[in-house]
Amino acid sequence: MPLTPEQKAEIDRLRAETAPTRRATVPALEEILYTAMPVLDHGFVRVIDYMGDDAAVVQAARVSYGKGTKKVSEDKGLIQYLMRHRHTTPFEMCEIKYHVKLPIFVARQWIRHRTANVNEYSARYSILDNEFYIPAPDQLAAQSKSNRQGRGDVLTGKEAARVLALLREDSERAYRDYAAMLNTDEAGAVTDPDRQGLARELARMNLSLNFYTQWYWKTDLFNLLNFLSLRGDAHAQYEIRVYAEAMLSTLERWVPLTAEAFRQYRLGGAHLSARALAMVKRLLAGERVTQEDSGMSKREWTEVMEVLGPSG
Amino acid sequence: MPLTPEQKAEIDRLRAETAPTRRATVPALEEILYTAMPVLDHGFVRVIDYMGDDAAVVQAARVSYGKGTKKVSEDKGLIQYLMRHRHTTPFEMCEIKYHVKLPIFVARQWIRHRTANVNEYSARYSILDNEFYIPAPDQLAAQSKSNRQGRGDVLTGKEAARVLALLREDSERAYRDYAAMLNTDEAGAVTDPDRQGLARELARMNLSLNFYTQWYWKTDLFNLLNFLSLRGDAHAQYEIRVYAEAMLSTLERWVPLTAEAFRQYRLGGAHLSARALAMVKRLLAGERVTQEDSGMSKREWTEVMEVLGPSG
Amino acid sequence: MPLTPEQKAEIDRLRAETAPTRRATVPALEEILYTAMPVLDHGFVRVIDYMGDDAAVVQAARVSYGKGTKKVSEDKGLIQYLMRHRHTTPFEMCEIKYHVKLPIFVARQWIRHRTANVNEYSARYSILDNEFYIPAPDQLAAQSKSNRQGRGDVLTGKEAARVLALLREDSERAYRDYAAMLNTDEAGAVTDPDRQGLARELARMNLSLNFYTQWYWKTDLFNLLNFLSLRGDAHAQYEIRVYAEAMLSTLERWVPLTAEAFRQYRLGGAHLSARALAMVKRLLAGERVTQEDSGMSKREWTEVMEVLGPSG
Amino acid sequence: MPLTPEQKAEIDRLRAETAPTRRATVPALEEILYTAMPVLDHGFVRVIDYMGDDAAVVQAARVSYGKGTKKVSEDKGLIQYLMRHRHTTPFEMCEIKYHVKLPIFVARQWIRHRTANVNEYSARYSILDNEFYIPAPDQLAAQSKSNRQGRGDVLTGKEAARVLALLREDSERAYRDYAAMLNTDEAGAVTDPDRQGLARELARMNLSLNFYTQWYWKTDLFNLLNFLSLRGDAHAQYEIRVYAEAMLSTLERWVPLTAEAFRQYRLGGAHLSARALAMVKRLLAGERVTQEDSGMSKREWTEVMEVLGPSG
Repeated sequence: MPLTPEQKAEIDRLRAETAPTRRATVPALEEILYTAMPVLDHGFVRVIDYMGDDAAVVQAARVSYGKGTKKVSEDKGLIQYLMRHRHTTPFEMCEIKYHVKLPIFVARQWIRHRTANVNEYSARYSILDNEFYIPAPDQLAAQSKSNRQGRGDVLTGKEAARVLALLREDSERAYRDYAAMLNTDEAGAVTDPDRQGLARELARMNLSLNFYTQWYWKTDLFNLLNFLSLRGDAHAQYEIRVYAEAMLSTLERWVPLTAEAFRQYRLGGAHLSARALAMVKRLLAGERVTQEDSGMSKREWTEVMEVLGPSG
Repeated sequence: MPLTPEQKAEIDRLRAETAPTRRATVPALEEILYTAMPVLDHGFVRVIDYMGDDAAVVQAARVSYGKGTKKVSEDKGLIQYLMRHRHTTPFEMCEIKYHVKLPIFVARQWIRHRTANVNEYSARYSILDNEFYIPAPDQLAAQSKSNRQGRGDVLTGKEAARVLALLREDSERAYRDYAAMLNTDEAGAVTDPDRQGLARELARMNLSLNFYTQWYWKTDLFNLLNFLSLRGDAHAQYEIRVYAEAMLSTLERWVPLTAEAFRQYRLGGAHLSARALAMVKRLLAGERVTQEDSGMSKREWTEVMEVLGPSG
Repeated sequence: MPLTPEQKAEIDRLRAETAPTRRATVPALEEILYTAMPVLDHGFVRVIDYMGDDAAVVQAARVSYGKGTKKVSEDKGLIQYLMRHRHTTPFEMCEIKYHVKLPIFVARQWIRHRTANVNEYSARYSILDNEFYIPAPDQLAAQSKSNRQGRGDVLTGKEAARVLALLREDSERAYRDYAAMLNTDEAGAVTDPDRQGLARELARMNLSLNFYTQWYWKTDLFNLLNFLSLRGDAHAQYEIRVYAEAMLSTLERWVPLTAEAFRQYRLGGAHLSARALAMVKRLLAGERVTQEDSGMSKREWTEVMEVLGPSG
Repeated sequence: MPLTPEQKAEIDRLRAETAPTRRATVPALEEILYTAMPVLDHGFVRVIDYMGDDAAVVQAARVSYGKGTKKVSEDKGLIQYLMRHRHTTPFEMCEIKYHVKLPIFVARQWIRHRTANVNEYSARYSILDNEFYIPAPDQLAAQSKSNRQGRGDVLTGKEAARVLALLREDSERAYRDYAAMLNTDEAGAVTDPDRQGLARELARMNLSLNFYTQWYWKTDLFNLLNFLSLRGDAHAQYEIRVYAEAMLSTLERWVPLTAEAFRQYRLGGAHLSARALAMVKRLLAGERVTQEDSGMSKREWTEVMEVLGPSG
């Protein structure tokens, strides 16, 4: 469990306090404010602050003075219009801040989203906790045969057992030796008074990429949607996708009209190339089209067939 | 006066509503939320939303779980430390959103600050109001003799009267002809049913750069400080500096510890070059230093003397 | 004609010089380097520097050591794959710098693309030239009846003549009075020695939005594609679209494989929502679908029909 | 040695080719183009492309048509002026692209500079090489007593030997088990045909933070200076500082006037707060000032004394 008793107490204290505000407020998001949603074996995501709501998107689109609209149905239509036409700036008017605990290799993918503000726990300054990620058995996937950056079947039996044992043993050893080099125990107390202990900024290099770090991550709604779209996608690595899924649930609490438009136009939509559009038009006109005469490569043809097929 | 009766009523309505929130809340900023602070002859700045407070800066620096600190004195010291050492990311954890009404030539300077979110009133879509900026008599400055991008003495007498008359007449004519080309009156009603009216996206080009536009402008605290530092500076053009000054007063309500550190380390501080530092050391050691043997150009020497001089 | 004799001579001089380089070099772009492509009545676009080529995109995707590939056909396939899957970072590895002369109202739209580097001619520091944009007769469009930010029929006869006369007279007057307030002629010489002249940073506000400014604009290939996609689109205002079209021709010289993929996947493609995809699947299955049972609004239905229709 | 024979051959081939260009060209940088400068035990930095030179900075500041200046002395003065007054946009007009091989923990610090374009070697897609960083004996520093994120004395004797042994053994084990989980040898050949091998995206988590990765990193000159200023500073971690130092040497080849101004105004300069400035003025006026009556905290006082002291 990722939270200490002190942390739980602090969260409870924060949740018990309320103050009156004139700002746009979203009760459904306030309900879960500060609470940690568990992700993976030791990670979590929690919303710790937010600014704006669906009405702020509408208001920005109208640059009006007040809340900018009367009827929910009109707001919904406008938000769908903005999403369909990829208007970006109105969605930038809302902001959200998360506290995330995540394995370092996930953090390395995540940080590639540059349009965000980040404060990460510093392993130059402090000692990292002895917490590392070990995949659940159903996530212990083999390398995909067809996709160089994907997963294939789940490993089973001896091979699975061996992999799990190696991951666990190496992680435990890495931390044990990290502490030994620091010459401290986990509470930070000196182990051997005759040793100096290696600098923290050096010792940390012994830890492996499955160790957990944590950060505050703040972004605007438009860039959050980009993140969720890329990292919530079926092609994203499972270990980051589960974070995106937890955050998608916070999106639905926060800005339900935007979340619905996002599902309709981005998560559930597809982009067709000029050649794919031409093929669809020929099909709708009753023509037969083959990959060869579509002008598409085999790879693109397969991708388009997946999108247009019965289960696409 | 920049606000219509409808706008005032809307602001009053928004200010009358409060809701409970678990988020960090700043009563001193809530006091003025939504209210318009007048700037120039028809402009204003008003805060319409915010996220975070001084404690959020501290909390990010500590990546702690709760509010992150006990004593105000410790928070103050940490914020001063962060400002002195130009730590940027903790200040990025707070966000503020303004609604600003400003002359187009001011907007053109302002927009150069790229790290912000902006929604501007669209003159392709809507008809601009007949509001333009005319400098107050004490701002009707001559071109500076010494600084190619600065102001000199205030114009007086006939020359001042002539300039004011030209500015006013040309602005009035520009708007009159804008409306004539649109074939509408200010309320948007068609003037002559036998004419079609020029497209709004074309007609707007007849307006001059002193006409007012408006936008929502949202940024994080770090980038706000950069803006205030550049645009609140004595070398900034007066017409943008007055906006920066109004916003500086909102900064003091919002994050008083950050505002104090900002005044101490950025507004009131100065950067010395290697040569200037060497000169100060020689002076402190009792040496006499001249411009010639300081290694500084005349221009830099003058700048440094201003910083170190009695009234610097 | 936008170039002075001195400028032409300078461009000729630059074009006459070559130096050997080990960098990736694109002869087709070198051919037009520094030359001004005319746009609108007094504007231009010219490429003044570039970094990288199609091979640099491929190389980045492979993070290889050398030019990264042997066969053009493989490079082409990889670039199409990257474009189809919206991989952004390999396209960021190329950079281009333009010198652009453009009306201020166009500059105001253009500057909203924040991920670029800009140096604009300063009207605080220097005196602007007496050059303003007057639409050609076939661009003198009426306001669209159906689209609040679009153009309708071209104005003709008396209404057209009147609009052109107003635009021209007001622009001429604006400049005449600008010079009068500055107390200088166009060469910068003082007109009346008994006057001081208004500060340039103030006088400029008398100019209207159709006056020309100029800037250096530098961006990476990915952000250039975004710009061309938005501003080269049929819904973009004509006066910025012509700049995008001129730049698209430079794209084709510079990175022909990327330009081809861009036309195939972005300019010629379309994004379908979940509802539109479902409709296409039903149509392909031989069902009849109406707007009512498609789940789409009338507006979206019309948009989708345009995309899928015979001339879409 | 970080380069394979194939890589060396490829670099030699690239260096042997030149083409004529009309672009600004810098012979001193061309001399080292593509060559790898060794950093740490297995890393390197190499310049693989660039755009612009000192004259491009000057040209942007003047938004002129040609190379923008006649005399080197004037260019130098203008560049010093721009640097002193923190003008940013002219320096953004130059761009440089590096290929860097670096330990993952260094990459994690480096990537925090968000205003850059990055393509990193993908360990989801490919197998990482068996190369990890082991500090040289003189860099095996103890934790600083006075600075929570700094280094103290160099470890010696048994403690040093033990730390080195742990780092090396754990790195070797991590890689051995990584390969075992992948079920491949380093050449990518399957080890045991009866096993499937763990997905690369999972196996990589067993590697520790001292393993090497590599990327292409491209940025503009202004952001490069920011990077060099922060990461070339004495407070930066040694392992990233050595990269900054190698890059500083490329800066001097590329833009010598900018490099000189950078040393003068940024690397060698110092920022004084309002209180520190007031103290300097009092000292120059012959007053005695103590920490207590300076208004500065002990910490700031110490920092200022270091800057102004004889060896500061």
